[in-house]
Amino acid sequence: MTASLIDGRKISKKIRVGIKSRVSRLREQKIRPGLGVILVASDPASCSYVSAKERACRRLGIFSETARLSASVSQSDLLNRIDVWNQSDKIHGILIQLPLPSHINQDAVIQAILPDKDVDGFHPINVGKTLIGDETGFAPCTPSGVCELLIRGGYDPSGKHTVIVGRSNIVGKPLAALLIQKKSGANATVTVCHSATKNMASYTRQADILIAAAGRAEFITGDMIKPGAVVIDVGTNHIEDPSCEKGYRLTGDVHFDSAAKVAAAITPSPGGVGPMTITMLMHNTVRSAEEFYRKLCAT
Amino acid sequence: MTASLIDGRKISKKIRVGIKSRVSRLREQKIRPGLGVILVASDPASCSYVSAKERACRRLGIFSETARLSASVSQSDLLNRIDVWNQSDKIHGILIQLPLPSHINQDAVIQAILPDKDVDGFHPINVGKTLIGDETGFAPCTPSGVCELLIRGGYDPSGKHTVIVGRSNIVGKPLAALLIQKKSGANATVTVCHSATKNMASYTRQADILIAAAGRAEFITGDMIKPGAVVIDVGTNHIEDPSCEKGYRLTGDVHFDSAAKVAAAITPSPGGVGPMTITMLMHNTVRSAEEFYRKLCAT
Repeated sequence: MTASLIDGRKISKKIRVGIKSRVSRLREQKIRPGLGVILVASDPASCSYVSAKERACRRLGIFSETARLSASVSQSDLLNRIDVWNQSDKIHGILIQLPLPSHINQDAVIQAILPDKDVDGFHPINVGKTLIGDETGFAPCTPSGVCELLIRGGYDPSGKHTVIVGRSNIVGKPLAALLIQKKSGANATVTVCHSATKNMASYTRQADILIAAAGRAEFITGDMIKPGAVVIDVGTNHIEDPSCEKGYRLTGDVHFDSAAKVAAAITPSPGGVGPMTITMLMHNTVRSAEEFYRKLCAT
Repeated sequence: MTASLIDGRKISKKIRVGIKSRVSRLREQKIRPGLGVILVASDPASCSYVSAKERACRRLGIFSETARLSASVSQSDLLNRIDVWNQSDKIHGILIQLPLPSHINQDAVIQAILPDKDVDGFHPINVGKTLIGDETGFAPCTPSGVCELLIRGGYDPSGKHTVIVGRSNIVGKPLAALLIQKKSGANATVTVCHSATKNMASYTRQADILIAAAGRAEFITGDMIKPGAVVIDVGTNHIEDPSCEKGYRLTGDVHFDSAAKVAAAITPSPGGVGPMTITMLMHNTVRSAEEFYRKLCAT
């Protein structure tokens, strides 16, 4: 291995110190930032994400409330719950843990969240603001976590050819939107590759910064990486592995061992982007509470 | 010249035949699609665009109303006008001719338009829907015109490396959003280049489809184009030319003569993307009226 590690946990910790002191300042004003999470059914992965979010809130002094709803919950019950939180002064951020059961209209549910409380940044109005560079909206957490990781890791994307593999609404598309903005910490030349891309390696090998977000286990191998590139692995995949106690192990979209021989810097997975996502969620929630307080003072 | 011409006027005409018959069907139901245009001040370029839009409406049987407001109009008067049209049953599309004078908050004005009447597709909610691939919104007219030009011209972007030069909110960004979607007529591998891109030609020379939308006169020259590429010129620039009667001539972002020797196909400018933009505006206005009629029937 020649690549240096981009340690998401360490960078997250630093950011969380700042978030914690913003929470303290708000609490001095009798405002406690609050996050409402809706968890439908109990898929083990979703439960573990939600627990991690609750834990992060607790450590930072953020109030959190989780509505655990059964898999058979009706669309209108779900919308009612959102409506209550939309109107609550205690909840400044609302997050729907995805995916939702198939009888629920996911778009309608996301669009029911007040954009000012949409700390996940999935409401179309926030997605649109992300693309046009209007910073009054919330950018989605994983893409903004990737940007923070690059900037704080010392890998400014400005002027760099950044190749994103994957075009999901949660990562690939909004990340491209963030990175092409004409502003410091962005300003990259961006290529978006995906399942319909022919000769994928011909693009990945050009990347100064390569971001893997396709949800395919270890498919970016060392031979697809330009020597000296910075590699960010957004993937979290379960692959079968009888040698592990659980019968599977977690792995990224990047084949770490071969990639680390070629890249200049690489994120581990887990321990890279994951902690950053939750940190950006905390940041957005506190920012929402700060704006709530500002409006309160103005009235 | 070896390239074949992609004739925007001809393709527009074909699309307008379809639009005209949709207008007729609506008018049989006593619904006349209506477009409201706000023109502030009287910049000659803006006036000429607005006239072209009015003419297109007239020819297709679409009602159009233009509010010509003085350069000193107040923000609140402008917002009032939008509000009247938001509530009017006669106006199904509202368009603000940009740019607005500097004392007007352009974002606030755009966001005041009811998203369902935002036929220009500039409201953040419509931009967001464009990026996430939610087709209930309106995509901006010039980018969707470029896509139509490619598809109807016989140059399906699917799987092609499409390089967009320019990252404006009006063209480059939403065009990238449209072209990366996983759907027929899109599905391209997309690279976005801009003023911070280093060695621009190294990207443009890779393009199967090259789209110039940077607003810089004739800066894409033949040597920057891969032989056999399809070149779409979105630019409309005034350049001084004493040999012309007016002292200037209009030109695109592409140096046509040198490009046409290398490309397989190329749009002229003018006569390429321009007519498509207005055609897509007409399409969006009629679509909005159709949806208005559908809702009317449902109540």
